[in-house]
Amino acid sequence: MEKTINHYQKEEIKKAIWIKFDTNQLYLAQEALKMGFKLHHSKNNYLMTYLWLDKERTDNIPGYTTHMVGAGGIVIDNQERLLLLRENSGNRKDKWNIPMGRVDLGENFSQAAVREVQEEAGLETEFFDLLCFRELQAWYFEQPDLFFACLLKPTEKAIKELEQNNYQLNYDQHEISGFQWVPLNELKQFAEDPKNNVARPMQYYLLRYLNALYTDGYKFYKDKIFDFNRLKTKTGSNYEMYYPNLLANKEDLWKDIKQ
Amino acid sequence: MEKTINHYQKEEIKKAIWIKFDTNQLYLAQEALKMGFKLHHSKNNYLMTYLWLDKERTDNIPGYTTHMVGAGGIVIDNQERLLLLRENSGNRKDKWNIPMGRVDLGENFSQAAVREVQEEAGLETEFFDLLCFRELQAWYFEQPDLFFACLLKPTEKAIKELEQNNYQLNYDQHEISGFQWVPLNELKQFAEDPKNNVARPMQYYLLRYLNALYTDGYKFYKDKIFDFNRLKTKTGSNYEMYYPNLLANKEDLWKDIKQ
Repeated sequence: MEKTINHYQKEEIKKAIWIKFDTNQLYLAQEALKMGFKLHHSKNNYLMTYLWLDKERTDNIPGYTTHMVGAGGIVIDNQERLLLLRENSGNRKDKWNIPMGRVDLGENFSQAAVREVQEEAGLETEFFDLLCFRELQAWYFEQPDLFFACLLKPTEKAIKELEQNNYQLNYDQHEISGFQWVPLNELKQFAEDPKNNVARPMQYYLLRYLNALYTDGYKFYKDKIFDFNRLKTKTGSNYEMYYPNLLANKEDLWKDIKQ
Repeated sequence: MEKTINHYQKEEIKKAIWIKFDTNQLYLAQEALKMGFKLHHSKNNYLMTYLWLDKERTDNIPGYTTHMVGAGGIVIDNQERLLLLRENSGNRKDKWNIPMGRVDLGENFSQAAVREVQEEAGLETEFFDLLCFRELQAWYFEQPDLFFACLLKPTEKAIKELEQNNYQLNYDQHEISGFQWVPLNELKQFAEDPKNNVARPMQYYLLRYLNALYTDGYKFYKDKIFDFNRLKTKTGSNYEMYYPNLLANKEDLWKDIKQ
C-alpha cells in the first residue's frame, strides 16, 4: 500500500486515491484512516475513503451530497377543487396535507410528485407546472431540504373514473385516513381555520397562495389547466431545465431554443 | 449493549437506536454492525449507525441527503451585457462560463450565486430573480444534481466602480484566466461559435435562452432589471418559498400572502 501511494505521488498520475470498503471491512478502513485516508461518505452498504496526494495544493475533492429533496402534488380536479389527504402516521398524523414525499434516485421531482399522488391517493395524474418551491436550512441531520410543489392534473382516464365514482378515491389506508376536495376559492378560509388542522407551514402558505391566485381574477386554473400544454422544459441527454412562466404566451420564442 | 437493546425493544420507547462513531472508533462500529446496526451516513469526522427496533414493522428510517446543489450568477451590467469568465482549472479549463459553484451549508442558492460572483469576479451583486434551473440525474457518485441559474445585478456601488474602471474586474487569478462582457443580443451567435469554447451544455442553452428572451422584444432586462424590485420570496423562520413570475405585475395579490 505505501509503495502504491509513493508511486502515485511520484508519477503525479492522480490527485487522489479512493478506496471503498464494504461493511465487513471497517477494520481495514480504520487502518486506511491511520495512513492518512479520510472518510468521504457512506451508503447502506459501503464506506468511501480517499487520500489526497498533491502536497503542493490543498485538498479540493468535492464533498458528497448536501440536500434532501421532496415533492408534493397540487392536484386540481375538473370542478376547481384541490385534493387534500389526512395523514395517518408520523409527526403530521391527523393533519390535512397535499400528497408528498421524497424524490427517489433516478426520478425527477415532477415524477416523484406524480408517484406520490398515485401511491397515497390511488389517482393517476400528469405533471403540468411547477407552482413554487421552498428552501429550508438545517432540516434532518442539520442538512438543507428543498421541496417542489407541483401542479398536477388528473389524466383523462382518471377524470372519467372520478366522475363515475362520485370523486371517491381508493387511497392507501396505511398512510392516509381520509381525503377531501376543497374548492379553490375556499382555501384561505380552510387553511386559517384551526379546527381544520392543516399541516404547517408549507401547506398553510400554499393554500393561501393558491386561494389568492384563484380569487384574484387571474383564473389561472380555470382557463389553463385543462386546456393548455405549455412547453416547460428543455430536455437533454440526462438533464432537464425548467423555465419560468414568463414565457407562458411566448411560444414563438421557443422556436429558437427548440432547434 | 444487548441489555439496552432488549430494554428499548420491550419498553417500545424508541423505534430505533442511533450510535455515532468518531473516525478512530471504526473498530467499535464494526462490532455494532455485527449486532445488526446499519450504516446511515458519514461525514468527514464521524460514521452514523442505527438499529431498527420495531420487529412488527419494516425499517422506515429516512435516508440521508441525496442531491448536490449548485448555483450560478447571470450578471447583467447597465449596458445590457452578460458577464462571462474563462475558467483556469478543472475539466472546464479555458472555457467560457458564468460564475458558479456549490451551495454551502447554511446559505440559500441565491446567496451562493452572489458569493461565487464575489469570489470569482470580485464583483458585488444582489439577487434579482431565479431565471431557470436544471435537474440532472446520476452526476457525481451517481447522485442527482440541481443547478439554479440566478439573475443578479451589480449593486449601485459596483456599477459606479465599473464605470470608473472601464468595466475591468479584479478577478481571482487562481480560478479565472479572463473575463468579458457579452452584449445580450449577441449571445446566441457567441454560444454557437465553436471557437468561443463555451462550457456545455448548461451554459450553451442558457446563453441561447437569454438571447432569445432579449431579442424577442420582451426587453425583460432593459425594462426591469435596474428599475423593478419584485417580491419573490416568502420568508419564514427558516425557510424561503419562491413563487413564479406569473405574479410579476400582480403586487396586490401579495397583500393577502404577506399578512
